Amino acid sequence: MSVVMLEKCRENIQKQLDNVVDFWLKYSHDRVHGGFFTCIGRDGNIYDELKYVWLQGRQVWMYCRLYRTMDRFHKPEILEAAVAGGAFLRKFARVSNSSGQWKCAFCLTRDGKALKVQRTIFSECFYIMAMDELSKVTVEENFPKQLFSMMEQLIYWVQVDPSGLGRPQLPGEVPINSLSVPMMLMCLVQQITEGRGQEVSQKYKELGIWCVQQILQHIQRAGTAILENVSVDGSELPGCQGRLQNPGHALEAGWFLMLYGAQWGDKEIQRTAIRNFVELPYQYGWDKEHGGLFYFLDVDGHCPTQLEWSMKLWWPHCEALIAFLMAYNHTRKPELLEIFSEVYQYTFSHFPDAENGEWFGYLTQEGKVALDFKGGPFKGFFHVPRCLYMCERILDDLLENKD
Amino acid sequence: MSVVMLEKCRENIQKQLDNVVDFWLKYSHDRVHGGFFTCIGRDGNIYDELKYVWLQGRQVWMYCRLYRTMDRFHKPEILEAAVAGGAFLRKFARVSNSSGQWKCAFCLTRDGKALKVQRTIFSECFYIMAMDELSKVTVEENFPKQLFSMMEQLIYWVQVDPSGLGRPQLPGEVPINSLSVPMMLMCLVQQITEGRGQEVSQKYKELGIWCVQQILQHIQRAGTAILENVSVDGSELPGCQGRLQNPGHALEAGWFLMLYGAQWGDKEIQRTAIRNFVELPYQYGWDKEHGGLFYFLDVDGHCPTQLEWSMKLWWPHCEALIAFLMAYNHTRKPELLEIFSEVYQYTFSHFPDAENGEWFGYLTQEGKVALDFKGGPFKGFFHVPRCLYMCERILDDLLENKD
Repeated sequence: MSVVMLEKCRENIQKQLDNVVDFWLKYSHDRVHGGFFTCIGRDGNIYDELKYVWLQGRQVWMYCRLYRTMDRFHKPEILEAAVAGGAFLRKFARVSNSSGQWKCAFCLTRDGKALKVQRTIFSECFYIMAMDELSKVTVEENFPKQLFSMMEQLIYWVQVDPSGLGRPQLPGEVPINSLSVPMMLMCLVQQITEGRGQEVSQKYKELGIWCVQQILQHIQRAGTAILENVSVDGSELPGCQGRLQNPGHALEAGWFLMLYGAQWGDKEIQRTAIRNFVELPYQYGWDKEHGGLFYFLDVDGHCPTQLEWSMKLWWPHCEALIAFLMAYNHTRKPELLEIFSEVYQYTFSHFPDAENGEWFGYLTQEGKVALDFKGGPFKGFFHVPRCLYMCERILDDLLENKD
Repeated sequence: MSVVMLEKCRENIQKQLDNVVDFWLKYSHDRVHGGFFTCIGRDGNIYDELKYVWLQGRQVWMYCRLYRTMDRFHKPEILEAAVAGGAFLRKFARVSNSSGQWKCAFCLTRDGKALKVQRTIFSECFYIMAMDELSKVTVEENFPKQLFSMMEQLIYWVQVDPSGLGRPQLPGEVPINSLSVPMMLMCLVQQITEGRGQEVSQKYKELGIWCVQQILQHIQRAGTAILENVSVDGSELPGCQGRLQNPGHALEAGWFLMLYGAQWGDKEIQRTAIRNFVELPYQYGWDKEHGGLFYFLDVDGHCPTQLEWSMKLWWPHCEALIAFLMAYNHTRKPELLEIFSEVYQYTFSHFPDAENGEWFGYLTQEGKVALDFKGGPFKGFFHVPRCLYMCERILDDLLENKD
């Protein structure tokens, strides 16, 4: 990729980001009950009014991040949308469990009544992400103590006792290190320590180290595979669960680790991140026949039991773009830029909808649009804008610091 | 379809049934810990050792039914397999909930430790199905009182108070009539009343009537649609959940209703079954472009949010074969046999694996094999053999009573 190509790529990414932000500003805001609609059809129609707490949290976070860090999004309408979304969450998202601990609902009715509570930590994590980022753009409020105590609760569920999450312990269960949990916590640590000075940074340093260790446990089979679920002592689990691979998720972990390595000046972690979490998942996760990243794979080549295993989803491609561009920016190895370019070509020729804006989320293995909505229960205003935002910033950095 | 065609069809179906029974007898039995493996790969390999209680129950039921009603399967090895499967279930499947009520696990480890309990009634229903059918083939035991009291518990959960299932009631939830619940109970009523005389039949007559009423509530939009979820008073629900259609499930309800109508001599129910639950789901559920039945649809033509909505699954085709053949046998309307023939052509040219036996379960919209295992967490020894068994018997009846 030449400098001219990189400049064209940056220009396209900027245009896409503007387009996606416009789409959600235009269609997703519920001006009657507050909060955001996330089930948005091909041409912007709302096809379901349920409100998913984790997607609401992600949208608040993304608006705030754009408002706070990019001049062209430092606009009152974006701040107002974020504040309104935050108010809706604060009012309706929290429920308490049978032990009186706080939990967040997974899903709310349009007017904010809890409809479903998951027995995991993810809605809670995105609630904290949103509130923390919001507190960084609103002058009237500082990082509230409440969020620190929520963090304590999360850490307790993950590291000490998960019973408050509501899932009864069963005799056949073994505790599992699922890649998503340390990734999520690491992301939270980066979020809440950013710009808060030494004291907060030190407070969560241990947790950050623990997250890195937990993530590195997923490197299996003498470094030739990233497995999605391992035992808590880092050994391989039996059956489908143990053999599961999710290349897009590994790539996301890759750039999380690169950021961590950059923050703490740890070059070894950066090398591991690039070799094991960026280059490797691409090698086994890229579909050599049709292009694009598989959603799930089985490390022994069995057919995964997830019906959608061979589909091409938008978000693994978003994560791959960030991971390869960041890896190239760290190393300047041309082969990493080559792969970025290949992922870029596939992504931008398949996912964006030139007619109605935003991106399709779900393609068949062959690359045909399989589900044509722009937002759904698992696709909100998050992976696409975060990818475009991250890539635009890395490209700016690259273009300013050309060799 | 001529008589010669029907004879050929019967011959093929008989051969397929023998093949499928052989496959499961050969590969699925765990001779160390008892019970059945259900995660069986393309060529018979066991790719996961977990044991799914509902699939174990279905396999016991199917073995017993074949043993009891078809001469060529009245063999000791089939009875022994059923008895061994029943013993495994009786020993390991039941767990109790926090209120001390019995529940069944959803999933067990290979040696029978509970790994997951679902907050629904389905594992319990298939446990009862299995034990009842088993009691009809084993001389040493009569229909145990225990199963009656389990039935009482089920009915209480469904009709009075679901809280024992373990799902906390949330303020945004509305009670729902989901098609699967009355279908499942109706199936159980037919199962446990069969051959047990007047008293048992009368005991469950009310429940049967209730099930029929609940199923008929799913006829919506002036008789032009079957919706998978409706409110408990039979009105349409908002959003994706309310618009969801599952053509294969409606077809299955169709032949359940036909059986009910035949049993009670209710011609009106039989007409409704054929018009609304057989002909109609085929009309909206059949893929005019590529053939085969869609898995999910949205009645207003929105894109369903289920990633697998456009895939062609084995079981809706099994249900369609039974439904159309039974409907033709009742009415002798040639257009019903024409559709049976179309479904038959699609099914037998796409699903059976001529090389390694049994059927593939999951095809892409275009009809390519998308997942190549023969058994998995949701595909056991049930829909294929039940379909072949039912069709063989109906074809026997048709060929004996030619016009």
